[in-house]
Amino acid sequence: MDRVIRVGLLGCGVVGTGTLQILRDNAASLTRRLGAPIEVRKVVAKDRDKPRHDVVRPEQLSFDPEDVLGDPEVDIVVELAGGLEPAGSWVRRALKADKSVVTANKFLLAEHGHELFGLAEDHGVDLYFEAAVCGGIPVIRVLREALASDSVLALRGIVNGTSNFILTRMQQDGLDYSVALAQAQEAGYAEADPSLDVNGGDASHKLTILATLAFGAKLVPSDVAVEGIEHLTALDMKMAARFGRVVKLLATGRSLPGWDGAPGPLDLRVHPALIPTTSPLASVSGALNAVHIEGERLGPCLLTGYGAGAMPTAMSVVSDLVDVGRNLLTHASGRVPQRAVSSAHLARRAVQAPTAHVGRYYLRFPILDRPGVLARIVGVLGAFDVPIEHMLQESRTPGSKEPVQVVVLTHAARDGNIRSTISEVQRLSGIAAPPVAIRLEEA
Amino acid sequence: MDRVIRVGLLGCGVVGTGTLQILRDNAASLTRRLGAPIEVRKVVAKDRDKPRHDVVRPEQLSFDPEDVLGDPEVDIVVELAGGLEPAGSWVRRALKADKSVVTANKFLLAEHGHELFGLAEDHGVDLYFEAAVCGGIPVIRVLREALASDSVLALRGIVNGTSNFILTRMQQDGLDYSVALAQAQEAGYAEADPSLDVNGGDASHKLTILATLAFGAKLVPSDVAVEGIEHLTALDMKMAARFGRVVKLLATGRSLPGWDGAPGPLDLRVHPALIPTTSPLASVSGALNAVHIEGERLGPCLLTGYGAGAMPTAMSVVSDLVDVGRNLLTHASGRVPQRAVSSAHLARRAVQAPTAHVGRYYLRFPILDRPGVLARIVGVLGAFDVPIEHMLQESRTPGSKEPVQVVVLTHAARDGNIRSTISEVQRLSGIAAPPVAIRLEEA
Repeated sequence: MDRVIRVGLLGCGVVGTGTLQILRDNAASLTRRLGAPIEVRKVVAKDRDKPRHDVVRPEQLSFDPEDVLGDPEVDIVVELAGGLEPAGSWVRRALKADKSVVTANKFLLAEHGHELFGLAEDHGVDLYFEAAVCGGIPVIRVLREALASDSVLALRGIVNGTSNFILTRMQQDGLDYSVALAQAQEAGYAEADPSLDVNGGDASHKLTILATLAFGAKLVPSDVAVEGIEHLTALDMKMAARFGRVVKLLATGRSLPGWDGAPGPLDLRVHPALIPTTSPLASVSGALNAVHIEGERLGPCLLTGYGAGAMPTAMSVVSDLVDVGRNLLTHASGRVPQRAVSSAHLARRAVQAPTAHVGRYYLRFPILDRPGVLARIVGVLGAFDVPIEHMLQESRTPGSKEPVQVVVLTHAARDGNIRSTISEVQRLSGIAAPPVAIRLEEA
Repeated sequence: MDRVIRVGLLGCGVVGTGTLQILRDNAASLTRRLGAPIEVRKVVAKDRDKPRHDVVRPEQLSFDPEDVLGDPEVDIVVELAGGLEPAGSWVRRALKADKSVVTANKFLLAEHGHELFGLAEDHGVDLYFEAAVCGGIPVIRVLREALASDSVLALRGIVNGTSNFILTRMQQDGLDYSVALAQAQEAGYAEADPSLDVNGGDASHKLTILATLAFGAKLVPSDVAVEGIEHLTALDMKMAARFGRVVKLLATGRSLPGWDGAPGPLDLRVHPALIPTTSPLASVSGALNAVHIEGERLGPCLLTGYGAGAMPTAMSVVSDLVDVGRNLLTHASGRVPQRAVSSAHLARRAVQAPTAHVGRYYLRFPILDRPGVLARIVGVLGAFDVPIEHMLQESRTPGSKEPVQVVVLTHAARDGNIRSTISEVQRLSGIAAPPVAIRLEEA
């Protein structure tokens, strides 16, 4: 076959550079595995001053997206610019011009995926996005293809490497949040503005995409109940260890049973949780990611690997190029129906209100060492139906004026009741500082 | 589209029954995800007396493979009979009749895969086999598609659930091999003849298939150096625990560096090994399987799940049916080039001789408590260049005539030298029973 697969790149940061390196270094094996060579026509960059001569030839470099979007020879547009705009307009233009698209843009897909997949279907082209969720871990392929015959009951993951790096440092080295965050920034894991990584926003984008595929429902990021890791302390990490647990930022999606066997609402949450050290997710440390899938037929399945980083992510981009290229060569674009992800086919599905969630909690109450305080806390817990499984009161240092820590692990309780308990306890006299509540999961 | 995907099943044991159940129970979602319904034309069974009316309609049931192989309407033949023959002849006939094939037959693919993939390519049809290796774990898709852009440096796995169940029982409950094997048979994990599971043969078939895909080389099962678990004892499990290790049956494939950057030989091994309890593979217990892949760009990636069992395996069969069906609907059969697996394209590759392997060992010497025995053993180790990292001599029970156990953990040594050491020590006086040698891996 004399065909060549012609590609245009929009964005040339670390993932773009990695993509070009793989296309260059693995050209022979890629051609063999795809059945045709991949030619990079244009690379559209933003920063005119950055040197790129090691991966981009002068005639390939452009600063005008039109050089890719307006080129009728380009078969596949690789969008690595990130963010909602102008990336969204570029992807729309590409699809409308009957070009297939490969993207790593989780934000765009979480917010506008349904519309974009619909566009791809209308135009008979592919929109692939393995690199958008968990970098090198092939979780999109697994959900879309390996599990095409199964029903996903639940998924749970560590899907943000930056926050996992921070939590691992806090846990293993006893660091405070701000110190661990500074280390993550030094190591190149956290951006100058790390908000989306640490406030759970990035994880909620990824969960939106994963849950859309897993449960076949039309979902948006605001369907996910989100809590970040900014308020976690080294003290809570130490306490977690005393209970044989570590703290992880978990993204959880579950299909709850409804009445009479009908599917109930989805339970979609991103939050820190204390999980047992024996859980397979507990050993997923540093910048690693992991996704645990519970299939009705498959049973449990865990995928672990680097969820970010130039090379793992670029690897997924190029594997998508091979897959989309195979479709182009066999005139089979759109061979994987978009029915699982496009708004034209998916119904909205009810999502459980955060306060309705029933689960276990770690509660920490910093109290003044005065008679009756503990009894009053226990009274409030009882009044709000929060059953105590385990209580631990630190021994008091004689003469110290430091607060004493009381930690309670609860049995299952409604989130709403936990919140009421916290605000009620905060009004008691003898409480030295605001109580802390972190979820317990068996993961 | 009015098209229907027509399927014929050869074999109707537990996986066949599971396949039919999924096709029946998930018919609506399968039709949506594939884009057309799947119709089972015929199910060819062996045992005429087994009741199957819950999944097979009377008019579907047949005992003549010709009803599937000779039916021009059948698009995809699902081969679930297992073994080399008659399964091999059936698959050949199906491919020659331009039918795509989905199979779970690892033995057949390990022995004759190259020929069969070549046939599939010649006839422009698909030969899919996700269920042949690690049941529900989508490792074939990951190697063939997700890693199409990468080079695999090494892979390491626990790929036989029966032996892993036995080892887990021995390790956790202190059971002897024969008792744990009986438990595995009772639990339905081990066949009446468990030879291939416990002697490493089944794992070597799976490793042959995985390594063929991972390293793009023409390999056969006899390229794998194999050792089973039959000689392991509860005592060695207990000793392993004292060194913070557990014993697992590992399947390992590595691409060794050659001279001047050229690829060297492949290192392909199946054998029990002591791995640290902190290794991600150590917590893969019971009937679970796991495959750890080290990609040049991907870095480390671990896939864990049930590697056997009717439903996980049937799930992979049906997902392959969807994938092959998508190719049929878009006239894209053969869209994934067979270049990675077919003999027409692959070269043989040198394989390292087992005795040339350099690695660490656990050695146990049961000795009589007499002066000089230990010194003589240490002398033999030194004579054969086997460096001692750690030595442990059990305290002797006064008056007991039981042998005393001496355990040595070695630094890296050549396998050939370990073998010479063992046979030399066995000739020493004061040795109470044959020494035991098990590999140490850091996994």
